[in-house]
Amino acid sequence: MALDRLKSVAQHVTGTLPPPHPFDPLSNAEIEAAVQIIRQQYGQLHYNAITLKEPLKKEMLRWLENPSIPRPVRIADVVVVAPGGKVIEGWVDLKAGKVTKWLSLEGVQPLNRLPWRIYRLLSMFAGKIQRSSNNVRLVVFQQKICTKSIVIALMYYRPHMDDSQYSFPLDFCPIFDAAKQEIIHIDIPEIRRPVNKAKPNNYHVDAIEKEGGYRTDIKPINITQPEGVSFKVEGRVIDWQNWKVHVGFNYKEGIVLNNITYNDKGTERPIFYRLSLAEMVVPYGNPEHPHQRKHAFDLGEYGGGYMTNSLSLGCDCKGAIHYMDAAFVNKAGDSTTIKNAICIHEEDAGILFKHTDFRDDSVVVTRGHGTVQLEIKLTGILNTYAMNPGEDTKGWGTEVYPGVNAHNHQHLFCLRIDPNIDGPNNTVFQVDATQGAGEVGSKENPFGNAFYAKRTKYSTVKEATSDYNGATSRTWDMCNTNKLNPHSHKPVSYKLVSREVPGLLPKEGFLVWKRAGFARHAVHVTKYDDEQLYPAGRHVPQTSGEPSRGIPEWIADAILSA
Amino acid sequence: MALDRLKSVAQHVTGTLPPPHPFDPLSNAEIEAAVQIIRQQYGQLHYNAITLKEPLKKEMLRWLENPSIPRPVRIADVVVVAPGGKVIEGWVDLKAGKVTKWLSLEGVQPLNRLPWRIYRLLSMFAGKIQRSSNNVRLVVFQQKICTKSIVIALMYYRPHMDDSQYSFPLDFCPIFDAAKQEIIHIDIPEIRRPVNKAKPNNYHVDAIEKEGGYRTDIKPINITQPEGVSFKVEGRVIDWQNWKVHVGFNYKEGIVLNNITYNDKGTERPIFYRLSLAEMVVPYGNPEHPHQRKHAFDLGEYGGGYMTNSLSLGCDCKGAIHYMDAAFVNKAGDSTTIKNAICIHEEDAGILFKHTDFRDDSVVVTRGHGTVQLEIKLTGILNTYAMNPGEDTKGWGTEVYPGVNAHNHQHLFCLRIDPNIDGPNNTVFQVDATQGAGEVGSKENPFGNAFYAKRTKYSTVKEATSDYNGATSRTWDMCNTNKLNPHSHKPVSYKLVSREVPGLLPKEGFLVWKRAGFARHAVHVTKYDDEQLYPAGRHVPQTSGEPSRGIPEWIADAILSA
Repeated sequence: MALDRLKSVAQHVTGTLPPPHPFDPLSNAEIEAAVQIIRQQYGQLHYNAITLKEPLKKEMLRWLENPSIPRPVRIADVVVVAPGGKVIEGWVDLKAGKVTKWLSLEGVQPLNRLPWRIYRLLSMFAGKIQRSSNNVRLVVFQQKICTKSIVIALMYYRPHMDDSQYSFPLDFCPIFDAAKQEIIHIDIPEIRRPVNKAKPNNYHVDAIEKEGGYRTDIKPINITQPEGVSFKVEGRVIDWQNWKVHVGFNYKEGIVLNNITYNDKGTERPIFYRLSLAEMVVPYGNPEHPHQRKHAFDLGEYGGGYMTNSLSLGCDCKGAIHYMDAAFVNKAGDSTTIKNAICIHEEDAGILFKHTDFRDDSVVVTRGHGTVQLEIKLTGILNTYAMNPGEDTKGWGTEVYPGVNAHNHQHLFCLRIDPNIDGPNNTVFQVDATQGAGEVGSKENPFGNAFYAKRTKYSTVKEATSDYNGATSRTWDMCNTNKLNPHSHKPVSYKLVSREVPGLLPKEGFLVWKRAGFARHAVHVTKYDDEQLYPAGRHVPQTSGEPSRGIPEWIADAILSA
Repeated sequence: MALDRLKSVAQHVTGTLPPPHPFDPLSNAEIEAAVQIIRQQYGQLHYNAITLKEPLKKEMLRWLENPSIPRPVRIADVVVVAPGGKVIEGWVDLKAGKVTKWLSLEGVQPLNRLPWRIYRLLSMFAGKIQRSSNNVRLVVFQQKICTKSIVIALMYYRPHMDDSQYSFPLDFCPIFDAAKQEIIHIDIPEIRRPVNKAKPNNYHVDAIEKEGGYRTDIKPINITQPEGVSFKVEGRVIDWQNWKVHVGFNYKEGIVLNNITYNDKGTERPIFYRLSLAEMVVPYGNPEHPHQRKHAFDLGEYGGGYMTNSLSLGCDCKGAIHYMDAAFVNKAGDSTTIKNAICIHEEDAGILFKHTDFRDDSVVVTRGHGTVQLEIKLTGILNTYAMNPGEDTKGWGTEVYPGVNAHNHQHLFCLRIDPNIDGPNNTVFQVDATQGAGEVGSKENPFGNAFYAKRTKYSTVKEATSDYNGATSRTWDMCNTNKLNPHSHKPVSYKLVSREVPGLLPKEGFLVWKRAGFARHAVHVTKYDDEQLYPAGRHVPQTSGEPSRGIPEWIADAILSA
């Protein structure tokens, strides 16, 4: 079986089958081949992630320029957890069929693949623990929370399996040791809060039918594409109205857009080398223990790819749809598949493709007019906590339902942009709407009406770490200063609009502030560093200055939902 | 003829015909009736505007509460220009058939209805003046620009009547006296700029066909509503998914939304008494003479209603469409009609109705989810100016086409909101995303992660004049503090989101700064003053602290397009 896999991979690389595009995610065959190669050398291990180690940018740019030269070698980027919780990062050269890197990492923990497992493990205790109320302390272990593989479980209860658990938060937090696979502590607040007695919310069809059914006063609006769609898909490359984009996918960032180009009257102009959502930082604003601990790194800790739901039952898009699957590795080392992880379709508004159903219901949309947007819908999926009748939220949250305290939190979305505007040598300018110099009556500004778009070039990483300025409607231009627009004689550019950003609200020195790193700022620009930037598969340091080491070149867009 | 009109109006008010809703705009019959009544008393006059004098709010609220009581009297609000340019404002009681107010106003000028007339008048000179080059100075009058009815014409040239004139700006500005109906001066710059020789832009179908025709690579996306629309229209009241709204219209603001309510499980809850776009201020940022003069008040000076294009040829909306007309008065006093001034339709995105084609292509959209938005599309319709080959814009503009200098400008949209959230007694709070008090380690904020939505009540008009704060993602809540949400126990509220506002960029003391008044700020709240707020028909003071006296209760949303 495994040897068959190896053979089929061999066929890939020997060319008897059409080889994958160098940006294509690893296939199930490639993933299992990598596992076989590792097993032969290291035996049984717990697999955390296997993903494509993306080719070096300079190597890729050479190949994109001339696809007739040998394509970059396929390399699997592997993260395994050895007994005792030690994290190992490895590379497997799938052509040579051997491990080329095997590095045991210190001071990091792997991305957490256990939340649902822990939930099942703990939810069965919930009722009992509640009933035994204060005696629950008897079962508390005395062990300190200090090791690297600690998971804090936020507990919920479901009266019925289809009910929304967010209406039934529990007031205690079991502490789980992922390495030991056991509960080492249960955090219980001084003030106990009983299980919510409020009416459950259940949004499943049958429950809604029971409550009188769906509304009937809305007439259908049908959208049809009688001649099919206007885009073509070859492999994972979408071709739409002179735009081309390769759609990648990995366990951490989810969707990845590579090599976005525009055919300008016959000339293929590169625009972006790579676009992805690198991280989402979610600090909570309640200072009361244990809520200060709540600050998720949704991608670095859980994985945007891993949290993708299958759209195999179809998505809510209308018209003609094209789907793509996603391949992962499970703990045992078998390859798994999420059917229809990506949905590509065309909308009247000119949407090129759409990928939905992150755990936070984020929606990635690429529009035909040539800008790439990351639109996020927050649908109230946030950590809630129990409260007693009449309890004061003290402004740290809102009682959204009887006995349910929705704590203040931020969603800081870290967008990683690797511009390639008419080539890789791009420059970034900060642009501020600015009043002209000189007061009313002065020679240079006699009437005081002068204003202009002030452009400030970023020369160092330090000055390139900047925040949004609402007073100047600050934006950021990515330019190729060697290529001028024939009319304006200004550099050809794309503009980053990253507004409505209050910045990271927790104060300097706090854990999330250290971990969020560049995510504290509206924009951060790094000089290109191939090794550092890719692959996407990285681990969460305990208290580093970088957000889960998926270093965003750009940090874009934050929303406070209070 | 005129007496027939009077009779039909009489029939309205005596009830032999269904009477108009008190919010309905004046009908053609009512407009001509008002003119007849004025003529009998004052003879021939030049009519600038006749619009509904909206009933007093307290009177309307009484009637809305109990429509069986006598409805508010229909009153025409009239603006005429007497010989010599004197502006007179009058009220005509259409039931009593008499003039109840006739006020001669000082220091104001009427809204300008002449731009196209002036354009025609001057464009014929353009070529000649250009050819005679510097001798043109011979025709300049020495008269000063000081009277109240001065219009400065920004000149363009069209090689072909279908070409876009914005590619062919002329370098001189005739000064026109609207009262005298003559050109009193021609402003000619020291540096002359010849007529542009660049290739014309012509977007008409035949021109595009000549250039190879429209693209053929886009497949149709059809939207159909086989069972019709989900909304009902009775008179001018739209009923859609528990929402009700009266759609008014006047020559200045264009569309006006009145008495927006939501049927909450049988209870009709009022939300907004009135919503409109009250003004759009457009300052230009080029300090060089004569461009400091360029600052439009699109509604106060030209009229959003007057600038509405007829959609009689159909609009670009898909699916089932419902149209409404608009009635105006012309200079002579005859009533005129714009067919299909308003288009009401339903979109998949949940749009309730849509009104397009202001002169600046603004789009007013009401969405089903209960917020009222004003979305503005800027489609490059801005004043352009001529430039010589190689001339430096000095950053005050951008060469968007050879020889075409698009000057920096702002679009400040003044949205007037009259909230009526569960009743007329509403309060406004400023909401800022704010860090909790106390540094890391302090008792109240031990971990430094505390943050909350700080709410500041506006008690005086002075403190209610505020700007956007990007650092706190500032928003504004309109609340009924006497009505609490059953879950959150917070006042029922609607939130105003007015972001991306750099504020008015011209400096204090300059003409536009004085005239823009409250429009200088993101938000301004006035205590309710019936007389002052409505009717919409007002005039542009030369240098008042108010924006064209259509006092916005709220000033929302500005975009810098540089």
